[in-house]
Amino acid sequence: MRRAIELAARGLGHTSPNPAVGCVVLDASGQLVGEGWHQRAGGPHAEVHALEAAGGRARGGTALVTLEPCNHTGRTGPCAQALIDAGIARVVYAVPDPNPTATGGAVTLRAAGVDVEGGLLADEAAAGNEAWLTSVLRRRPFVLWKYAATLDGRIAAADGTSRWITSPQSRADVHRLRALADAVIVGSGTARADDPQLGARLPDTEVTQPLRVVVDSSATAVKPGARILDGTAPTLIAVAEDADATHLEGLAPIVRLPRAADGPGLDVPALLGALYERGVRSVLLEGGPTLAGAFVAARVVDKVVGYLAPTLLGAGPAALGDAGITTIARALRLDVTDTERLGPDLRITATPALHEEN
Amino acid sequence: MRRAIELAARGLGHTSPNPAVGCVVLDASGQLVGEGWHQRAGGPHAEVHALEAAGGRARGGTALVTLEPCNHTGRTGPCAQALIDAGIARVVYAVPDPNPTATGGAVTLRAAGVDVEGGLLADEAAAGNEAWLTSVLRRRPFVLWKYAATLDGRIAAADGTSRWITSPQSRADVHRLRALADAVIVGSGTARADDPQLGARLPDTEVTQPLRVVVDSSATAVKPGARILDGTAPTLIAVAEDADATHLEGLAPIVRLPRAADGPGLDVPALLGALYERGVRSVLLEGGPTLAGAFVAARVVDKVVGYLAPTLLGAGPAALGDAGITTIARALRLDVTDTERLGPDLRITATPALHEEN
Ligand SMILES: NC(=O)c1ccc[n+]([C@@H]2O[C@H](COP(=O)([O-])OP(=O)(O)OC[C@H]3O[C@@H](n4cnc5c(N)ncnc54)[C@H](OP(=O)(O)O)[C@@H]3O)[C@@H](O)[C@H]2O)c1
Ligand SMILES: NC(=O)c1ccc[n+]([C@@H]2O[C@H](COP(=O)([O-])OP(=O)(O)OC[C@H]3O[C@@H](n4cnc5c(N)ncnc54)[C@H](OP(=O)(O)O)[C@@H]3O)[C@@H](O)[C@H]2O)c1
Repeated sequence: MRRAIELAARGLGHTSPNPAVGCVVLDASGQLVGEGWHQRAGGPHAEVHALEAAGGRARGGTALVTLEPCNHTGRTGPCAQALIDAGIARVVYAVPDPNPTATGGAVTLRAAGVDVEGGLLADEAAAGNEAWLTSVLRRRPFVLWKYAATLDGRIAAADGTSRWITSPQSRADVHRLRALADAVIVGSGTARADDPQLGARLPDTEVTQPLRVVVDSSATAVKPGARILDGTAPTLIAVAEDADATHLEGLAPIVRLPRAADGPGLDVPALLGALYERGVRSVLLEGGPTLAGAFVAARVVDKVVGYLAPTLLGAGPAALGDAGITTIARALRLDVTDTERLGPDLRITATPALHEEN
Repeated sequence: MRRAIELAARGLGHTSPNPAVGCVVLDASGQLVGEGWHQRAGGPHAEVHALEAAGGRARGGTALVTLEPCNHTGRTGPCAQALIDAGIARVVYAVPDPNPTATGGAVTLRAAGVDVEGGLLADEAAAGNEAWLTSVLRRRPFVLWKYAATLDGRIAAADGTSRWITSPQSRADVHRLRALADAVIVGSGTARADDPQLGARLPDTEVTQPLRVVVDSSATAVKPGARILDGTAPTLIAVAEDADATHLEGLAPIVRLPRAADGPGLDVPALLGALYERGVRSVLLEGGPTLAGAFVAARVVDKVVGYLAPTLLGAGPAALGDAGITTIARALRLDVTDTERLGPDLRITATPALHEEN
C-alpha cells in the first residue's frame, strides 16, 4: 500500500477534478505484477493502468488501491467492474470514497464475490489526497494560503520594495506549490503592484499549469499586456457583476461574481464556488494581505505555508491584512505540522486547529 | 575539555562581570582528580575550585580550562600563579582571554616552565561564553532581543488583548533567558501596559535575579506599587537627565541619561554604557516594539529569539516598531541558528549575518 501511495503522489496536480490514486496488483502468489496511477483527468484510472500491466497474471490476485475503487461510469468505465472482469480475488483499499457520485465500489465488488478490505494506511493515503478529500467534504476547493515575510511579519519595506525578501530556494518551493495546485489566486492589489506571471516553473518536471486567477472587482487591475495574459497557462479574471470589463473581451475568460456583503471586493464563497464548478479542487492563495485577510475572515483557509526570511524591517505592510479579528480570543488558531529550513529561510506549515470550526 | 565546558555552563547567569569558566584537573597519569567552575562573581575562579578538589594529586598533572587562566589580582588571586603553585605541568585552554586587564596568563605560565596549549574546542567554549566575549569586544552588554508574536507578526490583537499569545512552554523558556541574563529591559510603554514583574522564576533552580530595568524617559510610567518595585530583585529606572523623578526617591535606584539625538526616548548606547559600568554583561531586551525598534536602529542587537505562536490575527501591533529602515536593502539580515518547537509554538533564534556591521 505504501508503494501505491507513492504512485498516487505522481498524479498530484494533474488529476483534478479527480483524486490522485495509486494501485498495485499482486498475482495469486503475492508477486507484484502491475503498478498504475491516475495520470490525468479523462485518462484511465489507476486500477486500469495496473491491471493492464498485470495482464492475465491479475487473475486470482490482489489489488491494493489508495482509494475505494469507483463504481460509476464517468469519462472512463467503473473500476470495480474492471477489477471483477480481470478476475481479481481480493481488493484492499486505504480511504473510502467520500464522493457521493462514486461510492459503492466496495459493495459491487463484494456482490461479485471479491474479498474486500478497507482502511489500510488510511491516514497516510488521506494525507496524500488532502486537497481533494477536503474539496469533496466542503464542496469548495481546498485553500492553501502562502506568504513570504520577514521575521517581524512584513512582506515589504516601508517604500514598497520587497525583491527579494525570501531566498531562491523558497521561491523555487513556491513553484512546487503552484504545480500541485489547480488554481493560483491573487488580488487586484498584487496584480497592480507586481504584474505577476503566476506560472509554475519546475526544472525537469512536466507541469500541468494551474489556472491563474485575479480577483479584480472593478476590472481595472489587469490591463492588456499583463504577464498573466501571456497565454502560457489558462487565466480567469473574477470581476463584480456590475463591472465594465469590455476591455478584457478576447483577452481572458471572465467570471462575474457578487460583491462581498460586508467589506471590499467580491464574495469569497461565491469565488470558490465558481472555481469548484470549473473543476478546481485546490487553490494556492498567493495574496496579497488584503485578499488573504478576506479568506481568513471567511474561515476558508485549510492550510498556511509561511516562508520566513531571517530579516528585520520594523516597518512596511504586514503579511496578513484585516480579517475581522479584533480580540485575541477570536484569533485563528493553527497547529504547526511542519517546519523546514530552505536555504536561509524557514518554511512553516500549519493547519487550523481541530477545535476551529472552519 | 568538553566536560570543562559543561561545568562552565553551570555558572552562566551568576558570574558577571566575570565570564563563566570551567576547569578539569588530571593527575600525572591522566586520571581526573578535580573539577571546578566559577560559581559567582567575587568567589573563587574555576581553577581554584578544581585545584582544591585535586589537592596534592595536581602536582605534575594537567589542567584543562575553558578560558585562558587569568593573570591579574582582582577580588581573587591570579589563577596562573595558583596553577604554578600547585605544580601543574601542563595547561590546555580553549579560548584566549580577550580582556586586556586579565590577559597574559599563558605567558606567565610558560615563563614558569609550564607546558601551555590554547585553542582546544575553542568555538564550542566561545559559544558557551558568547555574551561575555561579545561584551568584552564591544565594551557594552551583549543584547538578546526576545519577542513573542503570532505567525503574522502581531504581539497583540487590535483591542490590545494579548494574554496569552504564546504557550506555557514558551513563557517558561523566557524565564530561563531571564535567569541567564544580567539585566532585563523594557520600555515605558510595556511598563504602563503590563506592569510586568520581570523576575526569573525557574522551578528547582537557584537563580541570580537579573537587574530589572525600565527605560522611562519622563519618569512617569513606574508608579509606587508597580510590581517591578516588589523588592524581589534589583531594579533600575533609566530617566532623562531633565526628568522630574522625585516621586521615585527611595523606591528604586535611578540612572539619568541623555535623550536620544534623533527620535524618542533615551540614547541607547548611553543606556548600554551605564549598564556596562554597573557590571552588566548581558541584557535581555523584552520590548516592547518601540524600544526594540530603537535597539535595532542602533544596531546593538546581538541575538534575536522569537516565540511564534501558530495563530493569525490580521490586525494589531507588530513585533518590531520603527527601526529607521525604509527600504529592503537596509533590512537587518540575520542567520537562523536554531529552531525549536516549544509546545504548540516555534522558537526561532537568529544572529546578525556576518556581513552586517553591528
Ligand atoms: N510576500 C508575499 O507573500 C506577497 C504575496 C502577494 C502579494 N504581496 C504584496 O502584496 C501587495 C499587494 O497586496 P494588497 O493587500 O495591496 O492587495 P491584494 O490583497 O493583492 O488585493 C486586494 C484587492 O483585491 C480585491 N478583492 C477582491 N475581492 C476581495 C475580497 N473579498 N476581499 C478583499 N479584497 C478583495 C480588492 O480590490 P478590488 O475591489 O479592486 O477588486 C482589494 O483591494 C503587493 O505589494 C505585493 O507585492 C506579497
Ligand atoms: N509580545 C512581546 O514579546 C511583548 C514584549 C514586550 C511588550 N509587549 C507589548 O508591547 C506593548 C508596549 O510596547 P510599546 O512599543 O508601546 O512600548 P515600549 O517599547 O515598551 O516602550 C516605548 C517607550 O520607551 C521609551 N523609550 C526610552 N528610550 C527609548 C528609545 N531610545 N527609543 C524608543 N523608546 C524609548 C519611550 O517612552 P518615554 O519617552 O516615555 O520614555 C517609548 O515610548 C504592550 O502592549 C506590551 O504588552 C509585547
